[in-house]
Amino acid sequence: MQRNLAELTLLCARLRQNIIETVAKNGGHLSSNLGVVELTVALHEVFSFPKDKVVWDVGHQCYAYKLLTGREDAFSTLRQEGGLSGFPRRLESEFDAFDTGHASTSISAALGLLAGERLLGGDAHCIAVIGDGALTGGLAYEALSNAAQLELPLIIILNDNTMSISPNVGGLSRHLSRLSMNRRYQSFRRNFDEALSKVPVAGEPLMRLVNRLKRAVKAVFYAENFFIELGFEYVGPVDGHNLRNLIGILRDVRGLRRPVVVHVLTQKGRGYKPAENDPGGFHSVSPFNINSGVLPTSGISWTREFGIAILEAGRKNSKVVAITAAMEKGTGLSRFRAEFPERFFDAGIAESHAVTFAAALAARGLRPVVAVYSTFLQRAVDQIIHDVALGKLPVVFAIDRAGFVGGDGATHQGLFDISILRSIPNISLLTPACGAELPLMLDWALGQDGPVAIRYPKSSPPDNLPESVLPLEAGRGLLLRSGENHWRNLNGRAAPNGNTGSKLCIAFTGGLFSETQGAAAILKTKRIAVDLFHLRFLKPIDETAFTELISCYEHFVIAEEGIVSGGIGEYAQALALKYKLKTSVTALGVNDTFLEQGTRQELIRRAGLDAESLAAIFNNLKPG
Amino acid sequence: MQRNLAELTLLCARLRQNIIETVAKNGGHLSSNLGVVELTVALHEVFSFPKDKVVWDVGHQCYAYKLLTGREDAFSTLRQEGGLSGFPRRLESEFDAFDTGHASTSISAALGLLAGERLLGGDAHCIAVIGDGALTGGLAYEALSNAAQLELPLIIILNDNTMSISPNVGGLSRHLSRLSMNRRYQSFRRNFDEALSKVPVAGEPLMRLVNRLKRAVKAVFYAENFFIELGFEYVGPVDGHNLRNLIGILRDVRGLRRPVVVHVLTQKGRGYKPAENDPGGFHSVSPFNINSGVLPTSGISWTREFGIAILEAGRKNSKVVAITAAMEKGTGLSRFRAEFPERFFDAGIAESHAVTFAAALAARGLRPVVAVYSTFLQRAVDQIIHDVALGKLPVVFAIDRAGFVGGDGATHQGLFDISILRSIPNISLLTPACGAELPLMLDWALGQDGPVAIRYPKSSPPDNLPESVLPLEAGRGLLLRSGENHWRNLNGRAAPNGNTGSKLCIAFTGGLFSETQGAAAILKTKRIAVDLFHLRFLKPIDETAFTELISCYEHFVIAEEGIVSGGIGEYAQALALKYKLKTSVTALGVNDTFLEQGTRQELIRRAGLDAESLAAIFNNLKPG
Repeated sequence: MQRNLAELTLLCARLRQNIIETVAKNGGHLSSNLGVVELTVALHEVFSFPKDKVVWDVGHQCYAYKLLTGREDAFSTLRQEGGLSGFPRRLESEFDAFDTGHASTSISAALGLLAGERLLGGDAHCIAVIGDGALTGGLAYEALSNAAQLELPLIIILNDNTMSISPNVGGLSRHLSRLSMNRRYQSFRRNFDEALSKVPVAGEPLMRLVNRLKRAVKAVFYAENFFIELGFEYVGPVDGHNLRNLIGILRDVRGLRRPVVVHVLTQKGRGYKPAENDPGGFHSVSPFNINSGVLPTSGISWTREFGIAILEAGRKNSKVVAITAAMEKGTGLSRFRAEFPERFFDAGIAESHAVTFAAALAARGLRPVVAVYSTFLQRAVDQIIHDVALGKLPVVFAIDRAGFVGGDGATHQGLFDISILRSIPNISLLTPACGAELPLMLDWALGQDGPVAIRYPKSSPPDNLPESVLPLEAGRGLLLRSGENHWRNLNGRAAPNGNTGSKLCIAFTGGLFSETQGAAAILKTKRIAVDLFHLRFLKPIDETAFTELISCYEHFVIAEEGIVSGGIGEYAQALALKYKLKTSVTALGVNDTFLEQGTRQELIRRAGLDAESLAAIFNNLKPG
Repeated sequence: MQRNLAELTLLCARLRQNIIETVAKNGGHLSSNLGVVELTVALHEVFSFPKDKVVWDVGHQCYAYKLLTGREDAFSTLRQEGGLSGFPRRLESEFDAFDTGHASTSISAALGLLAGERLLGGDAHCIAVIGDGALTGGLAYEALSNAAQLELPLIIILNDNTMSISPNVGGLSRHLSRLSMNRRYQSFRRNFDEALSKVPVAGEPLMRLVNRLKRAVKAVFYAENFFIELGFEYVGPVDGHNLRNLIGILRDVRGLRRPVVVHVLTQKGRGYKPAENDPGGFHSVSPFNINSGVLPTSGISWTREFGIAILEAGRKNSKVVAITAAMEKGTGLSRFRAEFPERFFDAGIAESHAVTFAAALAARGLRPVVAVYSTFLQRAVDQIIHDVALGKLPVVFAIDRAGFVGGDGATHQGLFDISILRSIPNISLLTPACGAELPLMLDWALGQDGPVAIRYPKSSPPDNLPESVLPLEAGRGLLLRSGENHWRNLNGRAAPNGNTGSKLCIAFTGGLFSETQGAAAILKTKRIAVDLFHLRFLKPIDETAFTELISCYEHFVIAEEGIVSGGIGEYAQALALKYKLKTSVTALGVNDTFLEQGTRQELIRRAGLDAESLAAIFNNLKPG
């Protein structure tokens, strides 16, 4: 084993190097992947993939696994268009047993694979690798209950890396691992306890270490009881960077005939100092310089604009509270939290609870704002329908990453919120076109007596329009006539009043403002005049005004950053038919398909929503 | 107190009588309501509603509360159109702090109410009453975690009535309540232990009692650890029918400054022998005879048809497995379970897990069928998108209660599944019109290599059509020409081939077959000929064939049992516009509104989908 272990240790170093270099070039998840290198090598050593199955929760820690399972040559294409996915994909390799991307699915999935395996008479092992964060999701708990009930020999690897549990320790010895698997484990535990007792309590870095260890032990205390109560065997804590121990314990666990939780302690960013020092910053990164370890500063983004808007709203109105599901930074709430800690709530990776909790805050008279990514809002559809919309409670949803998301790929696209929210009564849905419009919309939303959602993409907003602060009127948008330089409110009767001069109009959801501007510019060079209509509202729509507007044109195109079915384009077509308009109405968007990874621009092009494609629709028209 | 207690006891008897009589007349939830009479009276005695707030989980145990809070006079209208809701509704009374209907929301809601109360400087108490069943839902767990973290003095009443935990008892004394509130509680615990020790272990009824008590104690053992680990105070078990104890303990709990779980043991159906003996049967009932206590036998239903179809499918194919989320009987799976216990999985009240678990079974090569109510499928939207459809895994969804549901009202309508599922790529959606078509569709679904959903309403299917067994063709429906007696497959080119003789056609989703037949009959008396088109597929739709069909008519009406936005009617209108058809296309369905309770027929009428309303659309047409 000695020689073998040395080889495996070298292998780990090589994997780390490859991961660091590739992520520095392509961007991707760094800290989580560096944390599980030894764990992955150990799993690969002990189990027989693909016969045995491993499900990586969330999936943002599968790089080493990909490298070990036949994808080393292709690894340089990670997260590129047409390249390897940053997440496990069954279509990519038979070694990927189940697709992941969203948190907390791995236990359900591994349990289903195992139940299926047994029904088919097989004896393969099924493993879920889940982080302590993902374990806060209700789905993981539902699966744990069911797994305990079914009593199949499911193997759950609890990858404990955040050590976020408070350092308040009590009654340790009584609660330390009841399950003693063998001497190796016992000696690990002794070493762990000894190390803890020997640490001198002095000096900043040492204090941090002590707290880390204490938290780890507290985590054991907590987890052990919890899992054993549910009916699992429990092994741990295991040092997730000690290959020899890991392999030994996994070999033992492999022989168990009952469900088991293996509690592994890992360090995020392990092996790359900048990531070790700032694991949060290096969680998901754009390309960066390896030597300097300095991350590129992100420019102005919709997320930042929202962060400023909610802060201002909070200053103006003490009833404004903010809620996130474990995405404080990602949704731009850090400054709000710093200024109003008591009005900030982090629900954990628990979108369902976050929404129902917000509904109740609204019922009590507060003005809750739930900041959430579009793709994760899918986790709370019933809560929006049943707990918010039915009671017409004034919850505001700030939907970030609505539309195309880039390298994270199919699991993370925000393409469904429009059709889902439009089908729900009582809710309003808005979409800003430039940064200055976001606070305007947020203010409007906070003044309504029912739920309002505001969606914006993962991108930087374009330059502000002076007219973007034109007051909002429910159901109405802004029109930019060709040849004019200013937008006008489509109020009272439809502004065009019969004819705008142009026979063509492109209506758009906010995030596509630049693309439609680009299309208008291209068409201008061909002496084709086109009006632009910034919808602002995707729901409600002032049916009369919208119908009148459409009727003014020969061609009316809707460019929508979402799925076509149930979207605003299909609605506009239905309207045109209902009122027997002569206008030709074209609905553009994502047509009944999932979109794989690519840059935002590539995805927009793939959906036919880029400036060139939009302009090309009118290519066969005569100038005029 | 003595006199007072006697009065309260009389009050309980009166409440029970009223509940039994009203439910016997109107139908409704009986067992759960009879179980919490004393608990409700005690809460009402100790807390100051509506200043203090109570959230009833699911809400099917709120009748006594309604009677105590100003709704006694109106109680005879329970569950009737325009009458009292069978669930808490904020619009109905200021005493109803939060609307409920679906399981597991109460802890999130009560926590939100309490957090809001504190932010506003108030000191009201907030209480969640949750059953042990609802506690299996992931949402409840997410809320428990968050509640423990926030450390607000939330009061959770665990209403433990199913005693479903296995009677395997161990290490009792060590684990019995660590929290000793005061003498009253201590004496209760002593009495409880003594009672347990005195029961002679002999005789069937006594053995049942012993087991019940043992299970109760086991439940304590389990719950205590769980809640205390999470950071709650824990009180219990409390006899939920002992008013004096309940009131005393609730008074003590009222003064706590930390989150607490009060574990209350109640008996479902308490006080009405037939319900005590068959609490499951009397859970949700149609009107019945109080004296005989005999429930009306239910007729042939879609649920039963499905139960037969899945049983047959299971016999033909050993890879077919069935999954339910705590609705074995409700979804018709009891016979399947009896015959194939190892191929039946009950996930608990955990729709999200049920769907991801099914996805993994499918990934392993099984053919899982998830049987679920439409309204509860809303709990698994992300799992359908992310875990099933994205990977194109062959999971079959048998969606029961799709459409109008009757007395349960707005929270339980199944109106969103069409628009949600139509927006998701890779999934097929079918809707049978008569019983014989259901096994046909199930067989078809089980032969596909991607996900398929089949939706059917809460009603009895109409008489079988001989042609209902015409083979399914993806995307095609069946046409019944006016004046003909048989349906024909719309295959190859569109069957009507230019003209069917009629200028009118009504297309429908399966559950509305009787209504469209009725409309055709009414129109026939006016010498107006109308064709009927049974869509069969709501997705995919053969666009060419469907467009050709629509183009054959002057008027094409789509009658859809669901929300209009994103539905098949809006899609048909968009198609007609896209292909510049001359046909007038009308989309009927539920138009952007929630529907309150009423019988199925009343709801159909309210949505304008009954035979008379459908026929009336053509009223202004000339005969021909």
